[in-house]
Amino acid sequence: MDNRDIVVTSRIRLARNLKNYKFPVKITIEEAEKVISEVNSAINRINLNYELTYMKNLNNIEKSALVENHLISPALAEKERAAFLLSKDKKVSIMLNEEDHIRIQTLSPGLSLKECWDLSNKIDDVIEESVDYAFDNELGYVTSCPTNIGTGMRASVMVHLPALSITNQIEKLLYGVSQLGVAVRGVYGEGTKSIGHLYQISNQGSLGTGEETLIEKITQIVNQIIEKEVKLREHLKKNNFDEIEDEVYRAYGLLTNARRMTVEESMKLLSILKLGKEMDIVKLSKEMDIYRLMTMIQPSNIALKTGNNLNPKEREKNRAEILRRELLQ
Amino acid sequence: MDNRDIVVTSRIRLARNLKNYKFPVKITIEEAEKVISEVNSAINRINLNYELTYMKNLNNIEKSALVENHLISPALAEKERAAFLLSKDKKVSIMLNEEDHIRIQTLSPGLSLKECWDLSNKIDDVIEESVDYAFDNELGYVTSCPTNIGTGMRASVMVHLPALSITNQIEKLLYGVSQLGVAVRGVYGEGTKSIGHLYQISNQGSLGTGEETLIEKITQIVNQIIEKEVKLREHLKKNNFDEIEDEVYRAYGLLTNARRMTVEESMKLLSILKLGKEMDIVKLSKEMDIYRLMTMIQPSNIALKTGNNLNPKEREKNRAEILRRELLQ
Repeated sequence: MDNRDIVVTSRIRLARNLKNYKFPVKITIEEAEKVISEVNSAINRINLNYELTYMKNLNNIEKSALVENHLISPALAEKERAAFLLSKDKKVSIMLNEEDHIRIQTLSPGLSLKECWDLSNKIDDVIEESVDYAFDNELGYVTSCPTNIGTGMRASVMVHLPALSITNQIEKLLYGVSQLGVAVRGVYGEGTKSIGHLYQISNQGSLGTGEETLIEKITQIVNQIIEKEVKLREHLKKNNFDEIEDEVYRAYGLLTNARRMTVEESMKLLSILKLGKEMDIVKLSKEMDIYRLMTMIQPSNIALKTGNNLNPKEREKNRAEILRRELLQ
Repeated sequence: MDNRDIVVTSRIRLARNLKNYKFPVKITIEEAEKVISEVNSAINRINLNYELTYMKNLNNIEKSALVENHLISPALAEKERAAFLLSKDKKVSIMLNEEDHIRIQTLSPGLSLKECWDLSNKIDDVIEESVDYAFDNELGYVTSCPTNIGTGMRASVMVHLPALSITNQIEKLLYGVSQLGVAVRGVYGEGTKSIGHLYQISNQGSLGTGEETLIEKITQIVNQIIEKEVKLREHLKKNNFDEIEDEVYRAYGLLTNARRMTVEESMKLLSILKLGKEMDIVKLSKEMDIYRLMTMIQPSNIALKTGNNLNPKEREKNRAEILRRELLQ
């Protein structure tokens, strides 16, 4: 099994603020615009060709689809004066005037926080060459929210833990992990409730510890979680194969036949199918990226593709069509 | 839509007793044997070539499979001194030493009580040429149970009523029908609880009304039920097509993918699939006989085919295999 099966993506987010501006919450329209243009110039000075998008130019569906695809934060989507710069490969997104003036986010598949950190660092340097960051020699980077003061870094890893979830061992594990100063929340859905057995694991607080130490710590914890999930999958394969096999094929049968699907049901079934693919129970083409499918069937992704002309029932029909088309291709 | 879609089979059963013998409940072993050989000779005298099987020569699985296939009654299966004669095409079964000395049963597909009656009548005449029936000029045929005295006839029709069932209109309908002097019960499962939306409709009491009148009455009632089911299917197709379509394809997806299946779930899903086939929602080969499948996956039918070597979990796996093989062929 590839670790990428369990770790879907890694993400590093750096919070930065400009010295001579008020924090975004108090900023004027003119200053907000200046922040955006300063960072945009800094980035494009070295020909990175990132695309700049203003929040005010997007409708709610477009914003919400960007959130579903983890390219911007829900907080950014709500801010009129905000904007973001997006790299061509969508691995780097620089959010402007969210909670802080600048939030550099780098995304990469699998457990790859170090790569994300290197990339973030590079972008950070590029920007810093043109602008003055708010930095305190004692505290480190000054941020809007005290929890980000220090390195201003948040490292998050998205993990898919179906075996731990269906055997009801997830709560205990996640509680144990949270005792280590690490935050755990569901990826889709409200609050910590997880849909599709996807969890986001990230550091809590960034003061007093260096970035590399934080990354090492998170990586270590995630590796322990991976080990638990892998061992449990092996145990299930050995002792509960018939049940798992049945569950996986039922999920496949429903996903490839149903004519209507809610997000909740799709996510639950896709999670089981992903497990089945990774446990070699069901044969799917190697290129079949189930996590991509999980994103495609999110409400605003569907609304965006269909011009937002569908009522909720029609959206459920469209979702079922997408699933059949993608899985039966 | 063919009426045979809704009416699966028709059945006529005639209860007869021999004049000079005690009723089976009090009969001696020697007399029981004589009853069997008298009727066997009567039948084979005209070269019908019915196969005679003694209950004592069958194991429990064999008996119970015969009951599942509606070839003998549960009561016959329990009687040590009983036997039955079965025609080659399995349309005629003559049970011997059940509650009465002789119970002639004729089975035929669709709403065809008249055909069954004609056939039963013919067999009845053949037997009567060789034996003396217990007959009272005032009461008619003398039977062991008073409810059968008179014509000794029970006419039953097996109907499949998924639309009435899933829309929760079945209880009210069946209550109304039972007020007309007609008995309604589930075909599989305990008591009147129906599995697979299959119901048996039959006359209650056979005294004082001629056979043809009884048959006409049952046929009329069944035709009314058919009309209700057909109208409801049309209504569903017009007003709830998306829901029904989704239900049908989900049933198909589970039936053709699950690796384990209980009888209850199989029957529920096959019933919906049968509805979907008849409503032209799902394309299945014309020869696909879903009622036959419903019989094949009954517990004792499976046990019989697999030499009764399977534990309950293995039987569920075997059932799922049969369903996949038959539906995906």
